[in-house]
Amino acid sequence: MTTRLYNAKILSMIDNQDIFDGEIQVTDNKITYIGNYADDSKSVGSKASSFDKEIDCEGNVLLPGFKNAHTHSGMTAFRSLADDLNLQDWLNNEIFPREAKMTAEDVYWLTKLAYLEYLTSGITACADMYLTPESIFDASEEFGMRCQMVSGLNKFGPTLEVLERRYNELNGKSDLVGFLMGVHAEYTCDKELLESVSELIHKYKAPLYTHMSETKTEHEECIKRYGMTPMALFDSLGLWDFGGGIYHGVWCDDADMEIMKKRGLRIITNPASNAKLASGIAPISKYLEKGIEVAIGTDGPSSNNCLDFFREMFLVTALAKIKDNDPKAVDAMEVLKMACVNGAHAMELVDNDALAVGKLADIIMIDLYQPNMRPILNISKNIVYSGSKTNIKMTMINGKILFKDGRFSDTIDVDAIYNKCEEITKRLR
Amino acid sequence: MTTRLYNAKILSMIDNQDIFDGEIQVTDNKITYIGNYADDSKSVGSKASSFDKEIDCEGNVLLPGFKNAHTHSGMTAFRSLADDLNLQDWLNNEIFPREAKMTAEDVYWLTKLAYLEYLTSGITACADMYLTPESIFDASEEFGMRCQMVSGLNKFGPTLEVLERRYNELNGKSDLVGFLMGVHAEYTCDKELLESVSELIHKYKAPLYTHMSETKTEHEECIKRYGMTPMALFDSLGLWDFGGGIYHGVWCDDADMEIMKKRGLRIITNPASNAKLASGIAPISKYLEKGIEVAIGTDGPSSNNCLDFFREMFLVTALAKIKDNDPKAVDAMEVLKMACVNGAHAMELVDNDALAVGKLADIIMIDLYQPNMRPILNISKNIVYSGSKTNIKMTMINGKILFKDGRFSDTIDVDAIYNKCEEITKRLR
Repeated sequence: MTTRLYNAKILSMIDNQDIFDGEIQVTDNKITYIGNYADDSKSVGSKASSFDKEIDCEGNVLLPGFKNAHTHSGMTAFRSLADDLNLQDWLNNEIFPREAKMTAEDVYWLTKLAYLEYLTSGITACADMYLTPESIFDASEEFGMRCQMVSGLNKFGPTLEVLERRYNELNGKSDLVGFLMGVHAEYTCDKELLESVSELIHKYKAPLYTHMSETKTEHEECIKRYGMTPMALFDSLGLWDFGGGIYHGVWCDDADMEIMKKRGLRIITNPASNAKLASGIAPISKYLEKGIEVAIGTDGPSSNNCLDFFREMFLVTALAKIKDNDPKAVDAMEVLKMACVNGAHAMELVDNDALAVGKLADIIMIDLYQPNMRPILNISKNIVYSGSKTNIKMTMINGKILFKDGRFSDTIDVDAIYNKCEEITKRLR
Repeated sequence: MTTRLYNAKILSMIDNQDIFDGEIQVTDNKITYIGNYADDSKSVGSKASSFDKEIDCEGNVLLPGFKNAHTHSGMTAFRSLADDLNLQDWLNNEIFPREAKMTAEDVYWLTKLAYLEYLTSGITACADMYLTPESIFDASEEFGMRCQMVSGLNKFGPTLEVLERRYNELNGKSDLVGFLMGVHAEYTCDKELLESVSELIHKYKAPLYTHMSETKTEHEECIKRYGMTPMALFDSLGLWDFGGGIYHGVWCDDADMEIMKKRGLRIITNPASNAKLASGIAPISKYLEKGIEVAIGTDGPSSNNCLDFFREMFLVTALAKIKDNDPKAVDAMEVLKMACVNGAHAMELVDNDALAVGKLADIIMIDLYQPNMRPILNISKNIVYSGSKTNIKMTMINGKILFKDGRFSDTIDVDAIYNKCEEITKRLR
């Protein structure tokens, strides 16, 4: 299967490569050719002689898909159910009791609902920490979404044996779906559990991901408990020996950042969720100054409440400008790099971070024929400062077009997803 | 001309009226009937017996259009031209020199470009402070946009005579367009000029609108200059004797708010612009506590850079939650009221603030068949916390459908607007 995307503007997200006019050819799930009309010396790969599908991009922009580097997709069940609460009330009183009633099949459908929204927002991969990984695996495979599941292990479950079994069983059996080692958070694990997790990651030389320093209270309570920050505690237990990253990181201090730099950790920021729950504004400029890679996540649809990468991208820069009291803080191209490139790294993927021959065909098309993209003075600034979901003209994952011109692929039964999710939500309410 | 919008959920924005299933009938530019299928006693107005157009709303939501209560529409020319600068550098070095080269015809086309974007975002009226009101008048009338122009008088122009002439000539000759008294800002007017404006508003008993206390510097320099805040200065000159409102109001203090309460002034907040220019976060909860009406504006597309009311609505609540360190601050219904109802008041309109018989037919339809609106647990929270432009299924202004299902009305030449605006932008660059 070979698809030709011609008459495009290509924003490859390869360092220092300017946007150029050209075309991309995709064979099966990979990019096999990128060409420049005017200058053949800039073409790379081998041109196909015939195509199964040819798409005229009409001068619109192709770029690598956005990577939602932290989410809980299945929490669509709780969208607009329990807003305007603080994080601990919301989790303990509203979410945990309902999650206790959720089945694997519920998670399967609720995850697919989130995936529909990802397509409309140009998200081509997600790092999903949620219940019942086996049914998330099935949902992702069937739907065609690239998903790195992340274990949310904590003292209430699952066991370490289950985590290890999932790590072995769910990796390597799909080119779309994988499973990463993770724990929910310092405050939901005791020290013994964290020590056992450390043994496990040393056994597999695996990077680790976790929620960390999301709220001031949580950060300070860890200091009271252990005499050190969550970041330092994890470091003292060897949990960062193989890298990984932290979700939120709103309250990390300079010493935490030094550890992150030393261990090659990433910070995955969730600006809408942190704002809506009044957790605070993450110090993005500081992370960047220290040379720490920043990626972006939507967090779950229950705390956000939407899964809109344009809103997240604007918030990353807008909140940084407010926090730093500096309108020059974190410019548009830096934010696009977080969304397309760093996000891939923060889910331990390397083949979907840029548009280049040999890379996976996770490609989106930005519609320049919408009024918010006009005039065309600076495309990256237009995308980050002015873009919206209405600009997503196409979302391709692993070489397959799953969303185009406002319509989902025929392989997806949208009505079934909507109806099942309404049913499930009623039952859980 | 009678249009029937049936099979809808109606969110009238009348105080204490819950959302209900029903239909709306529009004759010419007004709502003539609102009916409830299940309960005829809840129907108001007279049913038409035949229709020129019947639209099945398929269970989607009808509500009053969003009111963009502060903007500079014609600044589309400068979108993504000069970002990441502080307000004074941006205005003095990038914007003012280019605006000096703009013609009335330029403003005509650039305004229409903004209007296209308003339609995609459910905006049915705007309060537009910009150059060449005569050509904005023409653009609004031709396009079909409801627009209250606001004079941006300052010491560089125009003269007071021109303001007075425009006030008399541009009011009362269109049911779509009007002209309000305004000055650009304290810092661009001297005291003598403000005194003359005061005489003029007393002559016409006219409310006054102005940019005020947008940046800390501007607020403090006024105190240095006059020994009082901009709000107190204007009050001392009698400029608030007939009401009106202020744009931005990021740095107003308690005493300023007391004046606003006493004079019945509104605050029009512009959260995206204030964040992007690092001007700060307006104290929205405080305004609400004092009983001051809050409305919302996008500000111009050069400082924002988009004209997306969903982004603004989310920012109003998200930034309030951060500023107050309280996730309960400013809930969704409060924000919807700002967008639909208070915005009308803040542009001195009363007949387009709600869906009721006799009101103007400025109506939008929210598409619930998008994944970000599912499940349907709480519609107002879905709109404010999860909504995006992709949810705008229809925008009707003054009884005319100008945007539906992603397409602009045939009465609008979209290509001509795009092409003209690219030309103009090249010349001004």
